[in-house]
Amino acid sequence: MGKPTVDRMLAGFKSFKAIYYEQRPERVKDLVDMGQKPEVLLIACSDSRVDPAILTNAEPGEMFVVRNVANLVPPYEPDENYHGTSAAIEFAVCDLKVRDIVVLGHECCGGISALVEHAETGKVPDRDFIGSWMSMARSCVEHGPDVEKVSRHSVRNSLNNLMTFPFVRERVEAGDLTLHGWWYGMKEGILWRFNSAKDTFEQGE
Amino acid sequence: MGKPTVDRMLAGFKSFKAIYYEQRPERVKDLVDMGQKPEVLLIACSDSRVDPAILTNAEPGEMFVVRNVANLVPPYEPDENYHGTSAAIEFAVCDLKVRDIVVLGHECCGGISALVEHAETGKVPDRDFIGSWMSMARSCVEHGPDVEKVSRHSVRNSLNNLMTFPFVRERVEAGDLTLHGWWYGMKEGILWRFNSAKDTFEQGE
Amino acid sequence: MGKPTVDRMLAGFKSFKAIYYEQRPERVKDLVDMGQKPEVLLIACSDSRVDPAILTNAEPGEMFVVRNVANLVPPYEPDENYHGTSAAIEFAVCDLKVRDIVVLGHECCGGISALVEHAETGKVPDRDFIGSWMSMARSCVEHGPDVEKVSRHSVRNSLNNLMTFPFVRERVEAGDLTLHGWWYGMKEGILWRFNSAKDTFEQGE
Amino acid sequence: MGKPTVDRMLAGFKSFKAIYYEQRPERVKDLVDMGQKPEVLLIACSDSRVDPAILTNAEPGEMFVVRNVANLVPPYEPDENYHGTSAAIEFAVCDLKVRDIVVLGHECCGGISALVEHAETGKVPDRDFIGSWMSMARSCVEHGPDVEKVSRHSVRNSLNNLMTFPFVRERVEAGDLTLHGWWYGMKEGILWRFNSAKDTFEQGE
Repeated sequence: MGKPTVDRMLAGFKSFKAIYYEQRPERVKDLVDMGQKPEVLLIACSDSRVDPAILTNAEPGEMFVVRNVANLVPPYEPDENYHGTSAAIEFAVCDLKVRDIVVLGHECCGGISALVEHAETGKVPDRDFIGSWMSMARSCVEHGPDVEKVSRHSVRNSLNNLMTFPFVRERVEAGDLTLHGWWYGMKEGILWRFNSAKDTFEQGE
Repeated sequence: MGKPTVDRMLAGFKSFKAIYYEQRPERVKDLVDMGQKPEVLLIACSDSRVDPAILTNAEPGEMFVVRNVANLVPPYEPDENYHGTSAAIEFAVCDLKVRDIVVLGHECCGGISALVEHAETGKVPDRDFIGSWMSMARSCVEHGPDVEKVSRHSVRNSLNNLMTFPFVRERVEAGDLTLHGWWYGMKEGILWRFNSAKDTFEQGE
Repeated sequence: MGKPTVDRMLAGFKSFKAIYYEQRPERVKDLVDMGQKPEVLLIACSDSRVDPAILTNAEPGEMFVVRNVANLVPPYEPDENYHGTSAAIEFAVCDLKVRDIVVLGHECCGGISALVEHAETGKVPDRDFIGSWMSMARSCVEHGPDVEKVSRHSVRNSLNNLMTFPFVRERVEAGDLTLHGWWYGMKEGILWRFNSAKDTFEQGE
Repeated sequence: MGKPTVDRMLAGFKSFKAIYYEQRPERVKDLVDMGQKPEVLLIACSDSRVDPAILTNAEPGEMFVVRNVANLVPPYEPDENYHGTSAAIEFAVCDLKVRDIVVLGHECCGGISALVEHAETGKVPDRDFIGSWMSMARSCVEHGPDVEKVSRHSVRNSLNNLMTFPFVRERVEAGDLTLHGWWYGMKEGILWRFNSAKDTFEQGE
C-alpha cells in the first residue's frame, strides 16, 4: 500500500518547507541564522520505530541526536580510530554545551537480541560488524537471558561509560550536566526512567 | 522561554502515547507486534536542526536512521574496532533488507566547518575525537575553502564509501538497492538531490 | 510577529496538499472518491481557541461540524426561515446517519458572557443579531451570574433542544444515536463530560 | 477498523492537553489569559472533509470559524429570528474586529447537490430544513446544472450577501476589512481563489 518511502519523504519535505519556511518561519529562523543551541544530547537506537522526534513531539533545534544500533555509548578511548558516537558526545558537551544527556533504550531491540543470542562467541555469523559493535555491552549479558532485562542494563552500562569521558564527568560533578536513562516499553507505550538512587527503572507519571 | 527541553520531551511522549497507543493504535500495532520493516536507511547528521522525521514528516517504521556528526560513512574496515555506522549499515542492508540508502547532508554543518578550519593539521585543538572522526572526509577539503561545497563533496564521498561495502555493492549492482545523496539547503529550505550521471546536485520539483 | 493569518492559511494549505494528496493520499482518497461517512456530528463554538480538529487531533472525514456563537442548538421550528444549525443537524442525522452528536461548550465564551451581561433586556446595545441569537439560552441565566455555570447549563439546554427534533428523538430512543455534552475547561485544559444520570459534568480519565 | 470516533476524539484531547498545556503552554497561554484576537473570520462548510484547521494547518486562536451546510451567508435581515451565521459575522466584525473574512466553498458539496437536484420545487422531500436553508443560494442554480459551477457561484453570492451587512460594507469601503472567496477543489487538492476584478476563480501559486 502507498508510495515508496523515498517518495513519501520527498513529499514530506514539501510540507516541512511550507510549514517551517513559509507558514511559521519564526520557528526556525533563529536556528538557521544564529546556529543551533540544543539543551539535550539524545542517544537513541537506529530502529525505525524509535524516532526521537516522533516519540517526544520535538521541534527543530531541541535535541542533538546520535542514533546507532542499540543506542550504545562506548568507553572513552581517545585513539586514532573513527569514534562516531564519542565525537558526537564531545561536540555536544564541549562545543554545544548541552545540559542533559539522555540515553534512550527500548523494548524489542534487534541489536540486544543479537547480543543475547550470540553471547557465547560474541560473533554474529556472516556479519562483519554487528558482533564487535554489540560487544561493548557484553557485560550486560550476565543479566540474561531476558532480552529486555539485558536491554535495560545496557542503558545503565552506557550511562557508566559516559562517566568515563573526562569532560562528561567533570561537568556532571560540577552540576552543569545531568545524565538520564530512559527505556521505551514499546508494547505498552510506557516510558521508563532510570532512578539511579534506587538502581531501578520507574514509570513516569 | 518555556520549560527545560527534557520536560518538554516527557510531555511530548504523553502526546505520542495518546495518539499512537490510544487514538490510532493501528498506525503502530503491526510494527510493535511483527517487527520493523523499513524500506529506507537514512544516514543523517546529529545536528538538532536536521531531524529526519521532522524534515520528511515521517511515521514510525518508515526509516532506519543513523545519525552521527556530519552524516559520514566510513570505508569498509572489518576489524575488531567499534564501527557504529558500519554496524548499522550492515544491519539495515543484510537483516532488514532496505531498498534505499539516503545520505542526507546539510548546509551550516559544524563538523564540516571544523574539518575545513583545521584542514592542515587534521587535529582540532583540545578535542579528542572530532578531528579523527572528520578525517574520513579529508579528501573533500581539496574542494575548499567553501564549507558548503566541501559539505556536498562529503555526501559524494560517503556514497563512494558505501560502495566499498561488499554487501552494498552487490545489491546495488543487482538492482536491489539504490543509493541517494541529498543535501538540505537550510537557509532557503531547499532539498538538493545528487544526480550521479551529471555529477551535480539538482533542486527537486 | 509573523505573517498575516491569511498568508499563513495559504502556506498551510500547501502543507496539507503535500501531506494528504502527495505523501499519504490513502488517508483521504476514499473520502474524496466515495463521499464522507462521519460517525459524529459536533456542535462547537466559533471561538478561535476551540477548534474541534485541534482539540481532538482529528483526521479529515471524522466529524461533521457545526460552529456557531456559543454552540447553541435551537428548538425544532420547521418554518420557512433560515435555520442553519437545524439544517446541519437534519443533514447529519437523516442523510449521513451519524451515530453520535456532541455538543461542545467551553469556558470563557464571549456569547455566554453577553447573554449574562444583558440578561434583563435580552438586547445587546448596538448589535442587531447577537442578542436574539443568544436568547435561545435565556432560561440558563437563572443559574447565573456565574458565566461558567450558565455555560454548562447551556450545553444541557442544547441537549434538551436536540430532543425536540423528532428525527433525533426517534433515533435516540431506538438506540441508534447517542447525545453527548462536553465542556472544555480552557484554563486548566480539562474536558468535562455530562453525566445525565447524575445531572452533572465529570472529569474524564 | 479502529475505535469509535468519539473514543478517538477523547484520546485526541489527551494529546492536545499534553502538547498545549504541558509541552508548549506558551502557544495558548495568552489566548486563555487575555482572550482571543483572531484576524480572520472563516465561513466554511460542515462537511467532515473540509476541516479548516486541517486544511490550513492552523494553530488555536488564528481563525474565528462559522460552519454551516454549504458555507452560506444569508442577506442582512435584522429581525427577531435566530440568525446564527449573522450573529457570528457580527461578533467577528464588530467585537473581534477581524481584518479578513474568507468564504470557503468546496467541490462535492452535499448541500449544493441538494439545491441543484431540487431546483424546481426548492423543497427536499422528507426534510424540514435543508430546502429552506439552501434556498438562499437559489439564484445560483441558473448557472447549473453543473454542481461545481453552482458551488463557485454560491461563494460569489455569499460575498455579495456579506456586503449587505452595513457594518461589513462600511469596513470594507474604509479598507479595514477584506473579503476573500476560496474554493477547495477536493479531487485534485487545489485551492482556487476568487479574483473579483476578473470575476473568476484562479489557482494560487
